[in-house]
Amino acid sequence: MLNPITPDREATLRALLPDDRFAEAGARYLEEPRGRYAGQVGLLALPRTTEEVATLVRAAAEARVAVIPYGGGTGLVGGQVAEDGPRPLILSLERMNAIRAVYPEENVLLAEAGAILADVQAAAQAENRLFPLSLAAEGSARIGGNLSTNAGGTGVLRYGNARDLCLGVEAVMPDGSVLHGLSRLRKNNTGYDLRHLLIGAEGTLGIITAAALKLFPRPAQTGTALVQVASPEAALTLLSLARDHVGDGISAFELIHRQGFDFLAETMPEVVNPWAVTPDWSVLIELGTPHGIDPQEALAQLYMQAVEQGLCADGLIAQNARQAEAFWTVRETIPEANRRIGSVSSHDISVPLGAIAEFIALADARIAALGAFRINCFGHVGDGNLHYNVFPVPGKSRADHLPERDQIKRLVHDLVHDLGGSVSAEHGVGRLKVDDLERYGDPVKLAAMRAIKAAIDPHGIMNPGAVLRAGN
Amino acid sequence: MLNPITPDREATLRALLPDDRFAEAGARYLEEPRGRYAGQVGLLALPRTTEEVATLVRAAAEARVAVIPYGGGTGLVGGQVAEDGPRPLILSLERMNAIRAVYPEENVLLAEAGAILADVQAAAQAENRLFPLSLAAEGSARIGGNLSTNAGGTGVLRYGNARDLCLGVEAVMPDGSVLHGLSRLRKNNTGYDLRHLLIGAEGTLGIITAAALKLFPRPAQTGTALVQVASPEAALTLLSLARDHVGDGISAFELIHRQGFDFLAETMPEVVNPWAVTPDWSVLIELGTPHGIDPQEALAQLYMQAVEQGLCADGLIAQNARQAEAFWTVRETIPEANRRIGSVSSHDISVPLGAIAEFIALADARIAALGAFRINCFGHVGDGNLHYNVFPVPGKSRADHLPERDQIKRLVHDLVHDLGGSVSAEHGVGRLKVDDLERYGDPVKLAAMRAIKAAIDPHGIMNPGAVLRAGN
Repeated sequence: MLNPITPDREATLRALLPDDRFAEAGARYLEEPRGRYAGQVGLLALPRTTEEVATLVRAAAEARVAVIPYGGGTGLVGGQVAEDGPRPLILSLERMNAIRAVYPEENVLLAEAGAILADVQAAAQAENRLFPLSLAAEGSARIGGNLSTNAGGTGVLRYGNARDLCLGVEAVMPDGSVLHGLSRLRKNNTGYDLRHLLIGAEGTLGIITAAALKLFPRPAQTGTALVQVASPEAALTLLSLARDHVGDGISAFELIHRQGFDFLAETMPEVVNPWAVTPDWSVLIELGTPHGIDPQEALAQLYMQAVEQGLCADGLIAQNARQAEAFWTVRETIPEANRRIGSVSSHDISVPLGAIAEFIALADARIAALGAFRINCFGHVGDGNLHYNVFPVPGKSRADHLPERDQIKRLVHDLVHDLGGSVSAEHGVGRLKVDDLERYGDPVKLAAMRAIKAAIDPHGIMNPGAVLRAGN
Repeated sequence: MLNPITPDREATLRALLPDDRFAEAGARYLEEPRGRYAGQVGLLALPRTTEEVATLVRAAAEARVAVIPYGGGTGLVGGQVAEDGPRPLILSLERMNAIRAVYPEENVLLAEAGAILADVQAAAQAENRLFPLSLAAEGSARIGGNLSTNAGGTGVLRYGNARDLCLGVEAVMPDGSVLHGLSRLRKNNTGYDLRHLLIGAEGTLGIITAAALKLFPRPAQTGTALVQVASPEAALTLLSLARDHVGDGISAFELIHRQGFDFLAETMPEVVNPWAVTPDWSVLIELGTPHGIDPQEALAQLYMQAVEQGLCADGLIAQNARQAEAFWTVRETIPEANRRIGSVSSHDISVPLGAIAEFIALADARIAALGAFRINCFGHVGDGNLHYNVFPVPGKSRADHLPERDQIKRLVHDLVHDLGGSVSAEHGVGRLKVDDLERYGDPVKLAAMRAIKAAIDPHGIMNPGAVLRAGN
């Protein structure tokens, strides 16, 4: 059983570190972007070093007080807010935001967990290197949270998920001990891979305090195109064709439905739609090429072949950086447009690539059978990861559809599960999908997860209620 | 406490499956390539299905009998043989060798654990795809063992270690339950990553029975060169230069010391030395390029730049497939030449890239201070992974140096540790490096490993004595 932070326990914790390491948790630590959860007020700790994190966690373990790790607060599944349970210690990593070192010749960067993703990208760029993790929230998301949730984003197709970009982690374990795993090694086969266990554990097995991150050569040149495709299937065929042509050079391959453009026009008319006539399906392609390959020429050749094969009938190749940015602006403001419209139910799902077309067709049909909705389906189609979000028709609001909300989510998730997919592709489980994990997860996997949780965090203090039901 | 396989227990196990699933374990199940361990004779089981593996493991768990998983038997650290402890059940995956399915459009292949690595490569090639895991033992190593040891090899620089090539695993857990994790998904953030926990656990947390493997486009063309470099440092500068020129296209970048050529001349004179005058240090480079980049031209340009920068003064670019194969034959027969010479002590180490030159200089000097030895240092320099092997001078044998053996190993491993490196880069811990792991491993990591082992395998039946000391 966990204990609440009482005035006595607060005094004990405060005595351990200088005064300015503590504050009452204000609103921004208790909210999350989708407004689904309101965190209860806890004691906010703002440690400056790994040792300070360890001191706090050790004391919390002794006092059996819950610890809620807090990064940039941009998570979409409520992993960063606890709305029930005894009053917790909210442990924000924001003051641990140093880039500890960059080793350009090794393609390695060491960052503290509180470093903002965009700052990590910039530190890499300053050394003519690329840190390829890229997502809409990169201006406020922090790398510790990105790793704890194994963030995805637009670069996964070429560079992998957050876990694939990490060589090692330093972490404070639930007993307050410090795991010194900040390895810069590319190969290290010395026992169980705790890095990969902590990555994606959403703070339930310990707190990542720093990470060794992989850097990459910056592509010599990039090229960007917005291409109409006949269908999601055609998009995948186009991706195969592109891979045959430019090998590993495809940095992004994003599917966009017409609904996204329509929502932008409705909510943010200042965002320019590059299309004269918006097609049902578009793909945003980015190529990053080495010296000797002109990306615009490669895109033009690819486009001509795609037209010949009947995959597409219209396309725009950015002629300069400004045009490329305009294409990206469309893609990156769609989530904000979605928020302004207000979804009935949003789904961050993945299916095997071969099942994408079937998923979209069946999900569309089953939702249509429930009533009139607008569906904005977009995302990282090369990863099989779609954001399949369901919205009211004009004149209705999300509130009008509250009764159908769970039914729609269930319908989509059941279908995803039947197709061998995942009901959480890149956002994680958090508190939002604990039920889903229990419903759709492999019971043997869940049993192993619970055994590991009990072994590593026997008092259950680390982010209780996230990923696994508290008390399990 | 574990129990031995007695006639009674053997009868109980044999009653569970058809007769032909059992045999007395012959010599090949009790040996390992370096001849350091002799496994004790156990009951050999040769199950044909995952369900049969589960049946056996469940019975072994109930009887508290040790299970030694056996793949291709090519591991170099004794993970596949138990020489002490009660008489075990040796569970060979060799009859589970099916390629269950290939999804070329998804770049996914499903293989059973007993599939031989070369057969997996061939099944990918038959669909015009690449499975890039490549290592000297690929003709007999099996994919389950490759994953359990997180095998490395020559393709890591471009494609990653075995764990990076796996989307999901099916496994039999130590209680006989089946983990159904054979996901073809590129993104799946639904809880703790048990795949990465089982990969590299060397059969101590369960038995991988099948895996979903990532395939890649086959490079349109490949080019191969053997280039003299002034030093290991120059090799790394050359690698940086190559990356700037051809981006992600470098498929292999292998450092070879003159000693390797000398050993080949001494033990296998039939292997052709491409060099007229063998340089101290050579690098074998392989480029795989997409359409539009001629790899030979790219190598020629790279070579000219390298010469201008003083990185190298001699080089050979293969003019055809036969010459390329001849270069590779040199690299791939060096381990066999080493075996014929007979090493005093071999070390599979990695250090941060920036510390490679310092490691080689210091290790060479410290070993020279102990006496006269020949050192063959070669390996995957772009990964920071060197095989740093110490041999007697002509006229002496490994037996003459038995007294110094531990001292040399300790000297090399101490240095590696001081430089932030790993004493097991790609071969794993097995039984050979349990002491090293205890000596050099982070105590917090070890404590977490032991807690996980106890949680997942409470009776300690799975490959006892590998990775962690038995009974811990």
